Amino acid sequence: MHSQKVKDFLIELQNEICFALGDNQGEIVIRDDWEKSDANRLSGSGSTRIIEKGKVFERGGVNFSDVSGSSLPSSATLARPELKGMSFRAMGISLVFHPKNPYVPTVHMNLRFFSAGEKVWWFGGGIDLTPYYVFEDDVSHFHRTCKDSLDNLSKKYYPKFKNNCDKYFYLKHRDEMRGVGGIFFDDFSELGFDGSFELIKRVGRSFLPAYEPIVLKRKTVKWGSREKEFQEYRRGRYVEFNLVYDRGTLFGLQSGGRIESILMSMPPVAKWTYNYIPKKNSPESKLYKYLRPIDWVSLGNVK
Amino acid sequence: MHSQKVKDFLIELQNEICFALGDNQGEIVIRDDWEKSDANRLSGSGSTRIIEKGKVFERGGVNFSDVSGSSLPSSATLARPELKGMSFRAMGISLVFHPKNPYVPTVHMNLRFFSAGEKVWWFGGGIDLTPYYVFEDDVSHFHRTCKDSLDNLSKKYYPKFKNNCDKYFYLKHRDEMRGVGGIFFDDFSELGFDGSFELIKRVGRSFLPAYEPIVLKRKTVKWGSREKEFQEYRRGRYVEFNLVYDRGTLFGLQSGGRIESILMSMPPVAKWTYNYIPKKNSPESKLYKYLRPIDWVSLGNVK
Repeated sequence: MHSQKVKDFLIELQNEICFALGDNQGEIVIRDDWEKSDANRLSGSGSTRIIEKGKVFERGGVNFSDVSGSSLPSSATLARPELKGMSFRAMGISLVFHPKNPYVPTVHMNLRFFSAGEKVWWFGGGIDLTPYYVFEDDVSHFHRTCKDSLDNLSKKYYPKFKNNCDKYFYLKHRDEMRGVGGIFFDDFSELGFDGSFELIKRVGRSFLPAYEPIVLKRKTVKWGSREKEFQEYRRGRYVEFNLVYDRGTLFGLQSGGRIESILMSMPPVAKWTYNYIPKKNSPESKLYKYLRPIDWVSLGNVK
Repeated sequence: MHSQKVKDFLIELQNEICFALGDNQGEIVIRDDWEKSDANRLSGSGSTRIIEKGKVFERGGVNFSDVSGSSLPSSATLARPELKGMSFRAMGISLVFHPKNPYVPTVHMNLRFFSAGEKVWWFGGGIDLTPYYVFEDDVSHFHRTCKDSLDNLSKKYYPKFKNNCDKYFYLKHRDEMRGVGGIFFDDFSELGFDGSFELIKRVGRSFLPAYEPIVLKRKTVKWGSREKEFQEYRRGRYVEFNLVYDRGTLFGLQSGGRIESILMSMPPVAKWTYNYIPKKNSPESKLYKYLRPIDWVSLGNVK
């Protein structure tokens, strides 16, 4: 019963987001409904929505999936090793938008509901932003929207989830954050089912108000090959994060999930250049000073 | 003393390869000698040679490194957990050539000498080929050259190392080999130091005879945007393998190695396209039938 409520919400949210950032922007949203049945590993169904080579988004994907398995893989139980091997059900929505215009940031959101055995369940997820060129006001707006959505439940969540996000979306081997953060949480059940579900709904409904205005404001900024090169180079970092650190991706690969839906988060094009360092004081060099924990909400207030 | 002999050989081999595939092809080979000192993690030095946006190679890298650390990371000790935490020295040469022409295959070689504590040492490495369009004769030649280099030591090595390679360069999440294999071995010390070093030398010296003729034969084949698109798409698989499965890469990332030299193996450009499946009977579709264990040496003899 709980699961059905969550499912209804996630599917409704998926539709809203696909309409706002897809159809409403003149994009063609391809819908790919799928089923997967593998008695030994993972069974379930899902609906993948994809924009490829669009006008605003070079690649955008919003995936809903609801899968069950007979044995939880290790990537899902790092924090709760006692669950290893239990049967489970995982449903969630996962999205990434890779804009064409390098002045529009890439965005990622994930919302998931996990249940293991009869009694164990939790929510997890988050939203985070990965710009190539930083407009401070945009990032402050993004963080403030995330904060506002959580403050009415409790003022303790934003600082905690923001801190989680700064720690999680971090490339240890580069000593660099993936982007400018956002909010992230996992193993969340402390408000009981109704309260925790309410939190997930607030986070999910803050996505469009947090991101859509940035797209509308920046999608017409003029850009050239210089900005494109830098965007494609930086997308290499996105690939590195997803394949080396991202728990959702690793969970999918380990549990035998549907590969195309899991790797839908990959950028359309990524480049690697040996030992590339942006020229001092160039617009590209400025990005790097933002790839660390910053108090974006206060920064916005001060201005 | 042992280490110095290996080092001299590896550096000589690096020079030979950079000359043959670099200078001799009219490429500009950038030399980047580096030192790294981190008392808590990894210290050492190396020499990275890079071709970027060359005429024949879109990206080529040949890296020599000689590093020591106070504590072996887990990726290096999967087969020998008793070594975990021991001090170690690792030297090796690692190379990848990503050709511009999609009809020329990408190639990878790694040769390494590991020592841990006072008494433990072993060699590891291998050579493998990743084509985008398969010419069966080329692949047979590649495998036969690898086989010949090993047969004089013992006829048992090629079948064993070929099998290792088929198993190792395999993307489980795609149920697909990365390419058409080659040879691969690890934890090798069974011939004593002199014999094992001889084996490494034979493998290293078989690289140019195995690969160079293929480059010379195919680098002038005409190609267009169709072949380029497919090459860039397939390079996405190369990225997936390196970041998800490659032991050398994971060892480097875990041990705090020099990132730019480790990720030198990444392709210059990689693309991901949702649910791309080549058209039936297209030249692109043919690749997939070769991405499984094939007896390439016999195949070549039969023709």
